[in-house]
Amino acid sequence: MNVLILGGTGFLGNHVTDVIVAKGHNVRIFDKSVVERSDVEFINADFSDRMALSGALIGIDVVIHMISTSVPSTSNHDPISDINGNLVNTINLLDLMRQANVSNLVYFSSGGTVYGIPDYSPMDENHKTNPICSYGIVKLAIEKYLHMYHSLYGISSTILRPSNPYGPGQKRMGVQGFIGTCLHAAVKNSKLTVWGDGSVIRDYIYVSDMVNATIKAMELLPQGVFNISSGKGYSLNEIILTIEMLTNKKINVEYREQRNFDVPEMILDNTKALKKLAWEPLISLDAGLKQSLSFFEDY
Amino acid sequence: MNVLILGGTGFLGNHVTDVIVAKGHNVRIFDKSVVERSDVEFINADFSDRMALSGALIGIDVVIHMISTSVPSTSNHDPISDINGNLVNTINLLDLMRQANVSNLVYFSSGGTVYGIPDYSPMDENHKTNPICSYGIVKLAIEKYLHMYHSLYGISSTILRPSNPYGPGQKRMGVQGFIGTCLHAAVKNSKLTVWGDGSVIRDYIYVSDMVNATIKAMELLPQGVFNISSGKGYSLNEIILTIEMLTNKKINVEYREQRNFDVPEMILDNTKALKKLAWEPLISLDAGLKQSLSFFEDY
Repeated sequence: MNVLILGGTGFLGNHVTDVIVAKGHNVRIFDKSVVERSDVEFINADFSDRMALSGALIGIDVVIHMISTSVPSTSNHDPISDINGNLVNTINLLDLMRQANVSNLVYFSSGGTVYGIPDYSPMDENHKTNPICSYGIVKLAIEKYLHMYHSLYGISSTILRPSNPYGPGQKRMGVQGFIGTCLHAAVKNSKLTVWGDGSVIRDYIYVSDMVNATIKAMELLPQGVFNISSGKGYSLNEIILTIEMLTNKKINVEYREQRNFDVPEMILDNTKALKKLAWEPLISLDAGLKQSLSFFEDY
Repeated sequence: MNVLILGGTGFLGNHVTDVIVAKGHNVRIFDKSVVERSDVEFINADFSDRMALSGALIGIDVVIHMISTSVPSTSNHDPISDINGNLVNTINLLDLMRQANVSNLVYFSSGGTVYGIPDYSPMDENHKTNPICSYGIVKLAIEKYLHMYHSLYGISSTILRPSNPYGPGQKRMGVQGFIGTCLHAAVKNSKLTVWGDGSVIRDYIYVSDMVNATIKAMELLPQGVFNISSGKGYSLNEIILTIEMLTNKKINVEYREQRNFDVPEMILDNTKALKKLAWEPLISLDAGLKQSLSFFEDY
């Protein structure tokens, strides 16, 4: 297949690209960052560049859309930029896909933010969606447009709602995930900032499990929304303790005031993905942390 | 109270303004169209004019937001304009409300479009929301931002999801509702276009009932989402027949191909509004059509 990966140079994008290339598909990456690899075609452009995007779609069988121009923790500072960078550009993408007769899309939404405060836990895909950050609202609005473009124009979209992906290659500082930040603090003996008392619970999914779900989505292309998660919850303090035991180090933790857009608990029910994507997460938290640790030690 | 009505010169805006003024409140209208009346303060500006909007908020107790820069039937032609005109401008409004310490909002969403294809009927507020037109998606995204601004910043919002309002003052041609178009065709002996075979079912709410719900919302300001509807469904053909009997005329109907963004049935359960707004619809379809007819005959 000819696969276009939007955002193929990020943490998840890199891993997804590796596996799709290894499976023998032709990969074209569209990203504003540059990547040096000879096994893919590369288009270096901004997501807002309609002409570049239009060219990128030529001859493509499936688009994997992993671009996000914002992160949850800062999206509330400027929701309008979030809307322009993600929602408007994704509608442009959909219109260009219609023009180019490209009708298959795998989209990375956000299981961590679209639901908001849980009514029950773990949350399945039917849980109400009341995000408390702009990042989550914009992801949700994109999901709704994908549904509409499927209903009206036949563009199929498999929407993945990942919990908190982690693993080798994750950015070390702050915005991209707690485990990476925590491993970095342990390895480099630097300070770790925790917002709140460390009791908030998250569902962490190891990167290879996330990649396998993406491959299944690309191969099966079922229409609809799928939680991609471990289905298990750990508090931040449990993660810290586990990493301290693994590294045999005491992490210097600074607890700061809870942020108002952090939900207290987020665990996702992955039953639908298990059934419809014939997928299951294989890597335990312990195993995932060990594999990640060796990356951070070498980095 | 000091009430700011955004979009106070439209079909519903006019009626809402009349009643709020009659109740002794101070009304300021913000609209790009001009209205000639001496009993309200008037700010003639576009919704995108931040400075005008900022001034309009000074001293205001509650904002009634009825502006829409798009209509369902054309919103899919240009979703990005829909997003800019409605979503982005409403976020500007929310930010300006925060700055001006105005923390009460009544918002007109769309019961007719936010739900999409019914899973069951009548649909209550917990029915899943998968709109098949941009108009509905944008209304829904605005609802989500209202929820977020309540959760993070304490701005309360009462969100009304009207079914299909009709009555005197409704625009006669096309975009604003089937009953107005149908009455106009009967009175003026002009042709009536029906998309599909006339079997699609809608829930019509008479304008005075809609206005009463708005007043209750403004007085009680309960946080959350409320269907405002008759709770009863009528096919287009039933409406045509009823108006033919009322006018003793045969309407010249042209049936054209069904549009893909029209849902087959839309009836809204209004139980929540009955309880929480202490409101109920009082005008039957027959009575509402008779009152509307005399308006259209005089027009």
